[in-house]
Amino acid sequence: MNVLQEIIPNVKNMKQLQNLVLARRASQIKEELRQSEFSNLCFKFTCSQRVRKPFKEVINVSWGDAHKTGMKPLSFVQQVLAACLYPQLVNSDRLPVGVRQRAQSLLKGCDGGSVGSYTATRGISERVHRVSEFITRRDGGAPSYPENIFISPGSQWNILNVLVNSEASHRTGVLTPVPCYSIALMSIRGLGAVTVPYNLNEEQGWELQVEELHRALESAKGVCNPVALYVINPGNPAGYVQSRKSIQEVIQFVSEKRLFLLADEVYQDCVHGENSEFVSYKRVLAEMGPPLSDTVELASFHSASKGFMGECGLRGGYVELVNLDLAVMKYIYKLFSTDACAPVLGQFALDMMMKPPQPGDPSYPLYSMETQHIRTTLVHNVKRVLEVVNNLPGFCCQPVKGVFAFPRLHLPPKAIQKAKEMGMQPDAFYCMRLLEEAGVIVSPGCDYGQKEGTHHIRFYIMTPEDTMEEVLRRLSSFHTQFMKDFS
Amino acid sequence: MNVLQEIIPNVKNMKQLQNLVLARRASQIKEELRQSEFSNLCFKFTCSQRVRKPFKEVINVSWGDAHKTGMKPLSFVQQVLAACLYPQLVNSDRLPVGVRQRAQSLLKGCDGGSVGSYTATRGISERVHRVSEFITRRDGGAPSYPENIFISPGSQWNILNVLVNSEASHRTGVLTPVPCYSIALMSIRGLGAVTVPYNLNEEQGWELQVEELHRALESAKGVCNPVALYVINPGNPAGYVQSRKSIQEVIQFVSEKRLFLLADEVYQDCVHGENSEFVSYKRVLAEMGPPLSDTVELASFHSASKGFMGECGLRGGYVELVNLDLAVMKYIYKLFSTDACAPVLGQFALDMMMKPPQPGDPSYPLYSMETQHIRTTLVHNVKRVLEVVNNLPGFCCQPVKGVFAFPRLHLPPKAIQKAKEMGMQPDAFYCMRLLEEAGVIVSPGCDYGQKEGTHHIRFYIMTPEDTMEEVLRRLSSFHTQFMKDFS
Repeated sequence: MNVLQEIIPNVKNMKQLQNLVLARRASQIKEELRQSEFSNLCFKFTCSQRVRKPFKEVINVSWGDAHKTGMKPLSFVQQVLAACLYPQLVNSDRLPVGVRQRAQSLLKGCDGGSVGSYTATRGISERVHRVSEFITRRDGGAPSYPENIFISPGSQWNILNVLVNSEASHRTGVLTPVPCYSIALMSIRGLGAVTVPYNLNEEQGWELQVEELHRALESAKGVCNPVALYVINPGNPAGYVQSRKSIQEVIQFVSEKRLFLLADEVYQDCVHGENSEFVSYKRVLAEMGPPLSDTVELASFHSASKGFMGECGLRGGYVELVNLDLAVMKYIYKLFSTDACAPVLGQFALDMMMKPPQPGDPSYPLYSMETQHIRTTLVHNVKRVLEVVNNLPGFCCQPVKGVFAFPRLHLPPKAIQKAKEMGMQPDAFYCMRLLEEAGVIVSPGCDYGQKEGTHHIRFYIMTPEDTMEEVLRRLSSFHTQFMKDFS
Repeated sequence: MNVLQEIIPNVKNMKQLQNLVLARRASQIKEELRQSEFSNLCFKFTCSQRVRKPFKEVINVSWGDAHKTGMKPLSFVQQVLAACLYPQLVNSDRLPVGVRQRAQSLLKGCDGGSVGSYTATRGISERVHRVSEFITRRDGGAPSYPENIFISPGSQWNILNVLVNSEASHRTGVLTPVPCYSIALMSIRGLGAVTVPYNLNEEQGWELQVEELHRALESAKGVCNPVALYVINPGNPAGYVQSRKSIQEVIQFVSEKRLFLLADEVYQDCVHGENSEFVSYKRVLAEMGPPLSDTVELASFHSASKGFMGECGLRGGYVELVNLDLAVMKYIYKLFSTDACAPVLGQFALDMMMKPPQPGDPSYPLYSMETQHIRTTLVHNVKRVLEVVNNLPGFCCQPVKGVFAFPRLHLPPKAIQKAKEMGMQPDAFYCMRLLEEAGVIVSPGCDYGQKEGTHHIRFYIMTPEDTMEEVLRRLSSFHTQFMKDFS
């Protein structure tokens, strides 16, 4: 008998993400395509043994990862980071002067002037200050303090460690939205906490309604001890944006019920559409004044992986902690210190996100042109997605104000029956067929949680325009055939 | 009453590292020095308000961080990473052809050809294969399988999550050496496990003796349920290297006692001195043959932060898992997947560590010269450290075969008394004085655990030669005065 197998607590409780199953299958398909291309070139005889795919490459829009879909990195970010890594470039006149200056100032904060040194636990001091300046500016002057900020490798789930009381008689509960970012669900459950679902109202554009929070909290009675509320704004997987009024209601609720508020705000830069504006929880809390502004305990997350920069692979993000007790802050500091520090280049990327080139800087014109292009692309893609998807029978997509579309999918009973026979969730079955037959990876709604009996798919829309057109073309043609096959 | 304060389980159980206290104080001193320099330049009148320091800068040799002490990054690594970040450089004839080729091949493994994309959970497939090729070569052909390898941001402590059974009646125990790498102790305890100390034999050059493992395991009876043994080879904080025979004994022991073996081997590249050779646990296990080689469950860690490259800030390392059950491997995969992926540039650094330029490559001569220089520096520094430290009254340092010196410090009773009065551990008191009076940061033995009544300091010796000379000069002069003051 295997030693580790005996001692692991909850192997079975951790759900397998269908998204990862799809990603693994996609790798196999890519390999098959590569071999098939190779066979076509060299020999003809092996081809017949394989089922030919009606596509030449797989397009993955299942992750919130702009570069993966072919969006280009911002030149300013590329140039500055290259100059930091190879400082000889700082003296090269091939780089704009603003780039060289930024690189020099970033390197000054590194011990030994090298990106290869460890930094302080909460991040390089100058970078942490930059984050707090950004927050203060963003929030109309509501103060942010560097000592409340931790720079981290992007996802800051170890902050959740503080929530889980393994010695309590009741298990720790965290209120989570339905639908919810899947990695958040996995992380919370992986830490041994219980997720307490509250539904967002799809028909009202995925609105968060405070009565539903009350219902959810009530439902936890006798099951677990709810200590925190997790909100995602702008939404993921559903691309909604909360209004100031809705945020105020949530703050009132957590204050009454004495819950720690976890605000995942990583998509704050990518809001678009009429009457849509991102307002941070921190700002609304500050504007509500005492006693709320002095007492509600809040953690707000942001990341260089998202926004126009989209530097997922560099790993840089931050969490701001508001109104936490000093003893708790010390504990969190220790938690972070066991991870040494966030990657230095991720910290630099975050710095550039916090303070991009300004009008008058030599790098501004190019930076501005590139970000404007991304913005235009996003708006174009949203328009096209809604046009196409809402015209397909069985699909219904709410307005998209962020970077994800999360349309509802009314599947024919025969398709649901077929999925059941195969031991799959109906929307996971749909996604697997879409991958096999059209070479497009989107995520099934079952990964995020959804109202009983409803099905969805999520896909990322911050892609080059032609990629999005190709996705929509493949999706339309696949969907039409799928609905025919199962009618 | 604060919400979070109520729900945190073990705030008080997590020990404060004195090393971090010293680092914070050092930041203040640096700021004082900066202001004092500024005052000297501008006004004279403020200086008198401050205690003047007899040094102009603080030297930090308390971390295993080569670049922090002024060692230079390897040119090949700098150039390749810069070219990956800013691919225009790949087409520039200012970079050697080998550099451009490596950068191109690294970028080929990234989705969208960008370092800004997320990678697979266990790392970019090609990089994972490179790691397994390295291990196979290093271990004389003993096979290593890519599916057993996870690339991670450097410290892979989340692997320890698998060990902690929060539902068992007895708490999970992990056997840990005395002295032990302090972050390992913090991480194990932070996860809610109990550390079960076993002593290394200082008088025998910090040898690991198997009788001591038996004693330690016995001592855990009734206290906790020991499930794993943590070993560090080459040693940290004490710079010893285990012999093949010693490793065989440890493997026999874990097999008999059914323990999971965690082998921290991150300093494997920096072994020096006569009769010293690094042999991996994986290799010895394979050579011992069945049934041991098929049954002993082993995790072996390595990192790009260490070795000649010393790229701590990029965050790239790996863990190889041997003989783990498939269900356990799936669980570990899920644990890793909640962290998205390791930083791409850390993965690239690891790749270059696994396969540096080879003889015949255009980049080889420079690479070889630079690493040879580091090797010579290390050997020189070890010799000087032993000469100087062992000639200071009250110091006794065992042979150093790795990158840390961990001399024993026989403190005068008056110094121990003074430390007690100040509520400090005696060696932490010594280190704080060394910082205040000589501007050198070393770590106190109390951070690592040490035999009752003994005291030590740890310092890193992979520094430029003149830095090490300056450290030794300051240490000697401080120590002489300290011993006089407390005689």
